Amino acid sequence: MKRIVTISREFGSGGRTVGKLVAQKLGWPCYDKELVFKIAERSGFDISFIQENGEYAFSRNSFLFDLSAHGGVSTGTLSLYDQLYIVQHNIITELAEKECCVIVGRCADYILKDRDDCLHTFIHAAPAFRAERIVSQYGERTDAPEKRLKDKDGRRKTYYKHYTGRAWGQMQNYHICLDSGAIGVEECAELIAGVAKR
Amino acid sequence: MKRIVTISREFGSGGRTVGKLVAQKLGWPCYDKELVFKIAERSGFDISFIQENGEYAFSRNSFLFDLSAHGGVSTGTLSLYDQLYIVQHNIITELAEKECCVIVGRCADYILKDRDDCLHTFIHAAPAFRAERIVSQYGERTDAPEKRLKDKDGRRKTYYKHYTGRAWGQMQNYHICLDSGAIGVEECAELIAGVAKR
Repeated sequence: MKRIVTISREFGSGGRTVGKLVAQKLGWPCYDKELVFKIAERSGFDISFIQENGEYAFSRNSFLFDLSAHGGVSTGTLSLYDQLYIVQHNIITELAEKECCVIVGRCADYILKDRDDCLHTFIHAAPAFRAERIVSQYGERTDAPEKRLKDKDGRRKTYYKHYTGRAWGQMQNYHICLDSGAIGVEECAELIAGVAKR
Repeated sequence: MKRIVTISREFGSGGRTVGKLVAQKLGWPCYDKELVFKIAERSGFDISFIQENGEYAFSRNSFLFDLSAHGGVSTGTLSLYDQLYIVQHNIITELAEKECCVIVGRCADYILKDRDDCLHTFIHAAPAFRAERIVSQYGERTDAPEKRLKDKDGRRKTYYKHYTGRAWGQMQNYHICLDSGAIGVEECAELIAGVAKR
């Protein structure tokens, strides 16, 4: 029996939905947006800043990237990005100590890697499946869906590597990796909840 | 419902046993050693040559490597290694066409990648779990178990890359990847058989 399930995921794979369903099946809270609120409360950072920078390397087009690159928004020796990571890290560690839960994204697999009561999972899918899914979930954008997938996963990869030192999406770092396009989002949740319960 | 399950695996992860158990649960044949016999029958190659070279890049210490490097054992334009790969490829393709089955190793995931009736799986585990397992299964050797794991997986990786052009052990190439050390060998088989049946 595990106490914590972490869900890492490729953009558009439905990992967030899998997380919600796993939590429902286990009767546990799911920390996804809820984690953003907790981080905002503790750090004073704006919700949109956390959503944009809490698991994505900053975009080179952003104003904050320019400032940060020139040291303009550092507070003491830590950049805002590093401060955000530390707050996230602490909240995730505390949650795992306190209660059974599902945590989506935000390097939780790495932060909790030394606990043996965690089940670490990764959800991925073929680009075509994900491209269709992001258009139906988040609507059309100026950029083609394939480009959006590439950009978003590229920024997750860079963020993960920067803060954990590990390559993102290596199967060896997860107990279960599932292709949600082939297996089905609902089925992925059922499998993961089943393993967590045993 | 799938008709074929392929099992790829890190050395010592118990992937072979998982394959056998999945086959038992589904009432299907499991092609592992049985595949070697079929290849021997068709190709005339020696069993030990097939076992040593059918999914491992050749060892630089071997006599055949020297000969092959100098073109000494080529028949026409194909080396013995390439001939072996082609026979394996053809037998795996024919088996998939003919019957429901479980196939362990030998790039079957790649060879059958375009069929939509296959479930492609990968079994891995932490080095400590695998090291202990190979000593209990295959006994002690002069080389330390950690070295044996590294050598064997290194040769699988090189072989796979050479014949498929893909990197070995990328989760995106599999529908399910499981850590047998964390989840248990029997449990892995149950999960895979369950998904194949649905």
